Amino acid sequence: MDLRRLGELGLIRRIREAGRGRSAPGVLTGIGDDTAVLSLAPGASLLATTDLVIEGVHFRRATASARDVGWKALAVNLSDIAAMGGVPRYALVALAVPGSAATEELDDFYDGMRAAAASHAVTIVGGDTAESPDGWFVNVTVLGEHPGTPRLRSAAKPGDAVAVTGSVGRSAGGLALLEMGPAKARAAGIAESAIEMLTAAHLRPTARVSEGGWRGQAAGTHAMMDLSDGLATDLGHICRESGVGARVRIDRLPIAPAVREVAEALGRNAVEWAIAGGEDYELLVTCSPDVAEELARGLREATGTPLTVVGEIEAGRGEPIWLGSDGEPITVRAGYEHFSG
Amino acid sequence: MDLRRLGELGLIRRIREAGRGRSAPGVLTGIGDDTAVLSLAPGASLLATTDLVIEGVHFRRATASARDVGWKALAVNLSDIAAMGGVPRYALVALAVPGSAATEELDDFYDGMRAAAASHAVTIVGGDTAESPDGWFVNVTVLGEHPGTPRLRSAAKPGDAVAVTGSVGRSAGGLALLEMGPAKARAAGIAESAIEMLTAAHLRPTARVSEGGWRGQAAGTHAMMDLSDGLATDLGHICRESGVGARVRIDRLPIAPAVREVAEALGRNAVEWAIAGGEDYELLVTCSPDVAEELARGLREATGTPLTVVGEIEAGRGEPIWLGSDGEPITVRAGYEHFSG
Repeated sequence: MDLRRLGELGLIRRIREAGRGRSAPGVLTGIGDDTAVLSLAPGASLLATTDLVIEGVHFRRATASARDVGWKALAVNLSDIAAMGGVPRYALVALAVPGSAATEELDDFYDGMRAAAASHAVTIVGGDTAESPDGWFVNVTVLGEHPGTPRLRSAAKPGDAVAVTGSVGRSAGGLALLEMGPAKARAAGIAESAIEMLTAAHLRPTARVSEGGWRGQAAGTHAMMDLSDGLATDLGHICRESGVGARVRIDRLPIAPAVREVAEALGRNAVEWAIAGGEDYELLVTCSPDVAEELARGLREATGTPLTVVGEIEAGRGEPIWLGSDGEPITVRAGYEHFSG
Repeated sequence: MDLRRLGELGLIRRIREAGRGRSAPGVLTGIGDDTAVLSLAPGASLLATTDLVIEGVHFRRATASARDVGWKALAVNLSDIAAMGGVPRYALVALAVPGSAATEELDDFYDGMRAAAASHAVTIVGGDTAESPDGWFVNVTVLGEHPGTPRLRSAAKPGDAVAVTGSVGRSAGGLALLEMGPAKARAAGIAESAIEMLTAAHLRPTARVSEGGWRGQAAGTHAMMDLSDGLATDLGHICRESGVGARVRIDRLPIAPAVREVAEALGRNAVEWAIAGGEDYELLVTCSPDVAEELARGLREATGTPLTVVGEIEAGRGEPIWLGSDGEPITVRAGYEHFSG
């Protein structure tokens, strides 16, 4: 069987199965969540996450500058730490580039990375460099700490409210604009501010670190993860890991007006971007329904970021069900999965 | 300027310079050593290291099985932790492979990795998987801990003895055998046992973890690092980081008889393999000359591994000087550097 038949989730399941039953002192959470939770010294949880960012797979140099690549490669890891409610502290950066790369590009790459790190007081402490036979390969590992109990994907409970921070669909809209080219987008009558907002969301996402830290401490928060593969895929992860189902009302999804405008101008579907687009790096949380409103108010006061309830967790293991504005189930296509051909 | 002109060391220097002067609470040692030393909880040092292993650069699938690749990708990181005198604990494994890869190869890869991890009680706690447009890209991050003061490259002192564990040149000899093909090597009259020993040293190196732990605790040990780029390059790192020079007597280098035999049969130079070959993953240490003999005896008793004094550290910053058996300086070519064209 080749990997295209097994798929990314099949591969991860296989790796996990093969390691099952081995003794692992100090591993509070291993393979399955995006971030491992480890115990080294008594009383402190160490968080560790790693992400590959590959030219031609995760980005194209035609649409992403070296600075963008550096920024995003770090930000996606910060987002994994944020999803646990942790505080990112250190980064290790491995970079393979062709020997023909200009040193100015490398400077831009590390500048972008440091810029993304700076606002979260994250320090690049090490890494590796190598020559790549073809294209850019980046791997960033971020280490963080957690003062209390990290929030996991497996903690959703039937009856929980399902909520997302900020808004969804911006990154997929930005990718569509980058692929058509900003000049063509302008010619299609799309506002400069919308182009800037959506492409920035795609190229230089902001990890919800303070939001994750606040939510992670708040009583009543159960499962938490970041939206990297798209709401459909990521809520599916929570359902699978928690042994529950979910219903989401698509008319409740927080979609920015600019995203709807761009989708309309391009003849695309903003709801599909919001559900299946991926790379929004918002937080997806489940919490007791009776505290949802209070938590949303508290989060906005503490961080300025809105939190929108979009659905609920149901008893019984199952894939998320998507409901139209009439309350009837509709079919959505899933988000991105590697090796899915 | 492109990277081939700047070179790997130039690139690392550039990254380090750009980050200088930034505040970094908790970073005891950052960029410069192969492993970062971090402080999270009071009293505990966290070690973190990351290494890229790339098809066509670090290995070729024609000579390395998927199991070998998995083993080596983990072992080289264990070696970085060993070089600090630390205890490796956790690994994060990022793997990008073409979609056409067979799942059996993936199983073999993770099997090899777990086999290398098992004898050191290291647990794979997470990672990432992605589709590669071309070839295998592996990035492994290993986290470890250190009960005391990690041993750094920058701690060599004038007058120190320079010593290496085990023997050097086996890996480069193994690579030469793999490149010519074992069948041809047999036809050249090379013993099966020599082929097995040298190719295993290259494909499935053993990190000197218990040796590093023992040396790291022993009084009188100053600088320590692992031999990954070759003795010439790596001793150069110690000299540069410590602001010292060094003299090495090449007739004192511990070179296994099998390595000399293979070199002779192939018309190659065993001393060049030992000095410039790289990937031996032995430990290179400097220590007070008056305790060198005692430390060698203690290490052999504790771990069974020999330690051989090959030279000494000199005052005054400079590149290592290599002395022939007549005591006269000779010229050696340096070890591997990425982007060096």
